[in-house]
Amino acid sequence: IMALKARALYDFNSENPGEISVKENEIVTLYSEQDIEGWFEGANSKGERGLFPASYVEILRNDAASTFNNNSSTSGDTYQDSRYANIPSGGFDALYKTQNKVESFNKPSAPAFTTFSAPTQQQQHNYHQTSQGSDDDWDDDWDDNSTVADEPGTVAGSYHDFEGNGPSTYRVSTSSVPRGGNAQQARSSATVSRNLNRFSTFVKSGGEAFVLGEASGFVKDGDKICVVMGQYGPEWQENPYPFSCTIDDPTKQTKFKGMKSYISYKLTPTHTQNQVNRRYKHFDWLYARLVEKFPVISVPHIPEKQATGRFEEDFISKRRKGLIWWMNHMTSHPVLARCDVFQHFLTCNSADEKAWKQGKRKAEKDEMVGANFFLTISTPPAPLDLQEVESKIDGFKSFTKRMDDSALQLNATVSEFARKQISGFKKEYQKVGLSFKVLSQAFEMDQQAYSAGLNQAISFTGEAYEAIGEYFADQPSKDLDPIMDLLALYQGHLANYPDIIHVQKGALTKVKDSQKHVEEGKMDRPQAEGINERCNIISFATLAEIQHFHQIRVRDFKAQMQHFLQQQIGFFQKITGKLEEALQKYDNA
Amino acid sequence: IMALKARALYDFNSENPGEISVKENEIVTLYSEQDIEGWFEGANSKGERGLFPASYVEILRNDAASTFNNNSSTSGDTYQDSRYANIPSGGFDALYKTQNKVESFNKPSAPAFTTFSAPTQQQQHNYHQTSQGSDDDWDDDWDDNSTVADEPGTVAGSYHDFEGNGPSTYRVSTSSVPRGGNAQQARSSATVSRNLNRFSTFVKSGGEAFVLGEASGFVKDGDKICVVMGQYGPEWQENPYPFSCTIDDPTKQTKFKGMKSYISYKLTPTHTQNQVNRRYKHFDWLYARLVEKFPVISVPHIPEKQATGRFEEDFISKRRKGLIWWMNHMTSHPVLARCDVFQHFLTCNSADEKAWKQGKRKAEKDEMVGANFFLTISTPPAPLDLQEVESKIDGFKSFTKRMDDSALQLNATVSEFARKQISGFKKEYQKVGLSFKVLSQAFEMDQQAYSAGLNQAISFTGEAYEAIGEYFADQPSKDLDPIMDLLALYQGHLANYPDIIHVQKGALTKVKDSQKHVEEGKMDRPQAEGINERCNIISFATLAEIQHFHQIRVRDFKAQMQHFLQQQIGFFQKITGKLEEALQKYDNA
Repeated sequence: IMALKARALYDFNSENPGEISVKENEIVTLYSEQDIEGWFEGANSKGERGLFPASYVEILRNDAASTFNNNSSTSGDTYQDSRYANIPSGGFDALYKTQNKVESFNKPSAPAFTTFSAPTQQQQHNYHQTSQGSDDDWDDDWDDNSTVADEPGTVAGSYHDFEGNGPSTYRVSTSSVPRGGNAQQARSSATVSRNLNRFSTFVKSGGEAFVLGEASGFVKDGDKICVVMGQYGPEWQENPYPFSCTIDDPTKQTKFKGMKSYISYKLTPTHTQNQVNRRYKHFDWLYARLVEKFPVISVPHIPEKQATGRFEEDFISKRRKGLIWWMNHMTSHPVLARCDVFQHFLTCNSADEKAWKQGKRKAEKDEMVGANFFLTISTPPAPLDLQEVESKIDGFKSFTKRMDDSALQLNATVSEFARKQISGFKKEYQKVGLSFKVLSQAFEMDQQAYSAGLNQAISFTGEAYEAIGEYFADQPSKDLDPIMDLLALYQGHLANYPDIIHVQKGALTKVKDSQKHVEEGKMDRPQAEGINERCNIISFATLAEIQHFHQIRVRDFKAQMQHFLQQQIGFFQKITGKLEEALQKYDNA
Repeated sequence: IMALKARALYDFNSENPGEISVKENEIVTLYSEQDIEGWFEGANSKGERGLFPASYVEILRNDAASTFNNNSSTSGDTYQDSRYANIPSGGFDALYKTQNKVESFNKPSAPAFTTFSAPTQQQQHNYHQTSQGSDDDWDDDWDDNSTVADEPGTVAGSYHDFEGNGPSTYRVSTSSVPRGGNAQQARSSATVSRNLNRFSTFVKSGGEAFVLGEASGFVKDGDKICVVMGQYGPEWQENPYPFSCTIDDPTKQTKFKGMKSYISYKLTPTHTQNQVNRRYKHFDWLYARLVEKFPVISVPHIPEKQATGRFEEDFISKRRKGLIWWMNHMTSHPVLARCDVFQHFLTCNSADEKAWKQGKRKAEKDEMVGANFFLTISTPPAPLDLQEVESKIDGFKSFTKRMDDSALQLNATVSEFARKQISGFKKEYQKVGLSFKVLSQAFEMDQQAYSAGLNQAISFTGEAYEAIGEYFADQPSKDLDPIMDLLALYQGHLANYPDIIHVQKGALTKVKDSQKHVEEGKMDRPQAEGINERCNIISFATLAEIQHFHQIRVRDFKAQMQHFLQQQIGFFQKITGKLEEALQKYDNA
């Protein structure tokens, strides 16, 4: 195989460790045709190795075909099932070449929404690679095949707490920190992985293809997704048949005569009342389908994968809690709750292997994903005001940044507070308890009958303080852990929004570009109007999703704060009760 | 002046830093004729300098008279007022010489109760030197003349906490730690100062003189102190006219046209209802009188002297608290409460300077102090069983050791607990509060009208946690400080008891010695019976004092534990109330 070469279209100045600079027209070597979320790894003409934006270079395809095939590492049929199956073969390269390359690209500092190098299917394959689940590997326990750590651009580092004081010792005792930790990790790891999105989201999501009118497909009536004007602006049409779903009885199952073990959860949706059994890998598979399908919907993150300790009671209970939170957000979402793949997941009897596999294949072959998803959206007739939309999106972007920062801070504070209660607070109260007991033991040596009552009362007081120490240690799992679970879920959503915002911004930029092109006579008006109309659809969907986010956020935080305060009140009342019991012992002392 | 020489009577092997070894018959040089609580400072024949037991050497008096006078450093009349004025001139030296020096002294390892070198008045003067208060220096502010640090054998070291982690930072914020610290200091400082007592207490207290029949004086009827048999053994006859005394309105006073300032406290005893004004130095003077007068009574320690910050509000309030505790123990004690010097202190109008000075001189010239105090004691007719007494005293000794250890531990724990609440606990709750507030501020950016109620509720919750942080910081002064005050007072008592026990043990040993002497024909029976009878008086007094100690201990600890628990209950209820208030804010959110 010959070395893969590419030509730089623009200057790129490396700004972060791991990146390399390239000059316009410089010939660079690519290590792989697969981009890493919008970045290529390779070497420039100086021999420096590192990352540069895939959109800044043009692959020089002399032997494209052979490279294409030889890079395959998994069975070929999954490519058709991948997230970007809707993108026509040959991808945007062909599209790109039909346009004037240089016309609107004067500012390489913000090229994300105006220039792109079309990813090949090969490149796309890297995305959610392990969750595409061919039937052949369906029985593998996906937990074992950690995809998180293997994903390029993700640093499998340790969790650092808010103040950067190294790995939190509290981590092991709460389900949520690892998730919070991951959200944070994504934030604090290489700046590279942050920048990656700048160049690819709009393209990868299918947003650009849709805006440019490249998406096409037959939308069945049942697939129609309505955005309506509500009291506070665009919103998803409510689910007329709301339901919820319980997740119970995580049970260890074995197969292959005990060679393989896994945990099975019993799911009971309220609208069917039929229990189905699902494994973590089913959730994982579903999650991948949803992410693939819905470009501007924030799919709640499922609890993180874990390689070891998967059968420990603590872990199981915490994963279940995480899945319950996830399920709650799924069933609360008017679009996600109703979509076919989720309904299949909730209702198909997994014992009926044939029906299950049928639904699974159907979902994986769903054509209405990515760019085509936007085709299914039906909006109110009056178009949105572009400037108003832009202002709302900018406001929401600021909001998510602030909320993310404050969630990070609250999570760190609460995690540290929990750790302090489990260690320091408990120790202090127990030391006081022990000291009272030691005093009562000394007093018992006094040879005086009349002090027996006092000695017993002091001894009881000592025990009360030891018990209070235990109360402090037990409490975080009742009130702080749920707060951290909540924050972890929302940190997941907040991590989704930059991509969602990028898609909307990308569409908006396309509209502006097209208007300019029309003015310059480079584009005809109907084409520009088409772009504007399709951008309007994306804007409606984005604003509806933002509205939904605010509504569940207010609902969830209200409920959790109330729960937290109720727990705290109960906690301090329990302490008071114990102390009152101790005080009574002195009545006859 | 010629160097003062002494001859060693026995071998002494130094066991601790600061001590030097001497051989029997070795001639040593003394730096001063004044012993330091039973130890001489000097040099042995090898030229080593340090301390050795005064009782192990015999001063070689060639020029005793001239040395005696030249060593005087304060006005001579105070010697007659000193604690040991009852000891005949020439002291025990004369007595000692009339006995066979070596007969019963085979074991120099425990010579305290069987051998002694009589201290001269010169030597004794060192004891409570600065509290003898001639009228000339009465107006000095005694607080300035720190006597504690100047006392030989006392190391003016810093307070080390229970775990030896260096000076406690909490020290400054509680009145009791310095006192506790002193008790501890006495315990942990040079082993020397511990050993000192072994050789001198029995002698210095006057216990030995009394047992040997050397004490004599006319006991007025009003001076009679009765020990009676109570339900639990010997006890002081109850005060038929119990009273208490309030200490209020510490007020800064000036004299010498503002050149000198001091704090004046208003004392109002219930039995006179007449208010008198007293200064700290009056308490200090009274304390010295009481210590001098009552060899086997545990005089409560007054709050420690302090050189700086005496006019700061915190200090004044804490000293007042300490004085109230002290007063409570004084008025609760059947003997101390009724004694003349205390009554003079409580009732004499200090504006009537003549009456005050008259009472003061009378107290300083009181003959019924030390050895003579025992003459005033009237016991039940049936003598105590010596062995039973010994067993009770040994039991009490073990008890005090255990109580002292546990008080030390509790004090350290409580002090650390207070420190943690003031710093760490407060900080944790306030960090949680701040994080909630930051979250609510982020939420306020959401542009959604329907979230205003939630945002306000979260903000209020943040404030509630900040308030709870303050509650934690404020609480120790209400519940832990009083515990520490109590412990400090009792640590003072526990520091008194080794001396009291030594006096009783010394007397007991004298009885055993005398029995042996009678068997060996070296003492006639009536003399031994006298010793036995006088030891019986000391035993009655000691057991009565122990009984009193247990009774006030049970009373005080019961009351304080109840107060502590009530405060803690109120504290946690206050927190609960605040949280309930916060919870309500969500009702309409």
